[in-house]
Amino acid sequence: MVEVPGSVGTTASLSLRLGQMVLAFGSLLFMTIGVRFYQFTAFCYLVTIMSLAIPWNLTLAMVDIYCVILQQPFQKPRILLAISIGDWVVSVLALASASSAASVVDILRSNESSCPPTICNRYQFAATLAFLTWFLSLSSSLFNLWLLPSLI
Amino acid sequence: MVEVPGSVGTTASLSLRLGQMVLAFGSLLFMTIGVRFYQFTAFCYLVTIMSLAIPWNLTLAMVDIYCVILQQPFQKPRILLAISIGDWVVSVLALASASSAASVVDILRSNESSCPPTICNRYQFAATLAFLTWFLSLSSSLFNLWLLPSLI
Repeated sequence: MVEVPGSVGTTASLSLRLGQMVLAFGSLLFMTIGVRFYQFTAFCYLVTIMSLAIPWNLTLAMVDIYCVILQQPFQKPRILLAISIGDWVVSVLALASASSAASVVDILRSNESSCPPTICNRYQFAATLAFLTWFLSLSSSLFNLWLLPSLI
Repeated sequence: MVEVPGSVGTTASLSLRLGQMVLAFGSLLFMTIGVRFYQFTAFCYLVTIMSLAIPWNLTLAMVDIYCVILQQPFQKPRILLAISIGDWVVSVLALASASSAASVVDILRSNESSCPPTICNRYQFAATLAFLTWFLSLSSSLFNLWLLPSLI
């Protein structure tokens, strides 16, 4: 059986999951603590998507831990397809929310009274972490998609 | 040889290409004619990406026409991989630009003096067409990616 590093049940996949959780959590922290993110739709959207990404990746990290401990490759094509589609949906939502937040920060920066630099930097950093979450989520999705044809 | 409808060299792929060109062109028209889009980074970004998507899809439409007329399936895995990656990059950029533009329109709408409804509707429609461009571009990319393992 072809083994694609980064596909479900491998240690690489586990690290991708943990990376996504840390990044999504960081993005949430910067976007929510001490700032009034709820004033802007794009920021509420970012908070929602990052709150979705954390439990999704936590669940799949447990699947990876189970497979790694029992030394069993993941061989269920249907579930793999569902995971791959789920990852792809999370990655699309993460990219859309990161882009929206980044462009709102860009507009806010042009008006310093409404967004002092310290606050705007936090928003910017949260958007950057969301971009990184997108990138890892997309990698997971493509690794699983690449493994799929060899399981069918 | 497996033939995936929508992959390079099929009539479905040709219609996807034409669809993307029409949508990207429409988005460009609404975003540029009679409005000062250059005031906002997100709108300049949208115009740039849509201007990139049109020649990319025009070139690939010609490849499709060539294959359809000569009744020859496209059997070059390396070029197919390059096209699939190119489609995916265009789709990611289209999604990011559409999301950015949409969130900027959302902010502008809250301040009617800076964006009268007629102008804001044009911006909104341009962002919507960009979202549709993203969707078609992603379909092309996934169809080609699905065909790839069977060519290797």
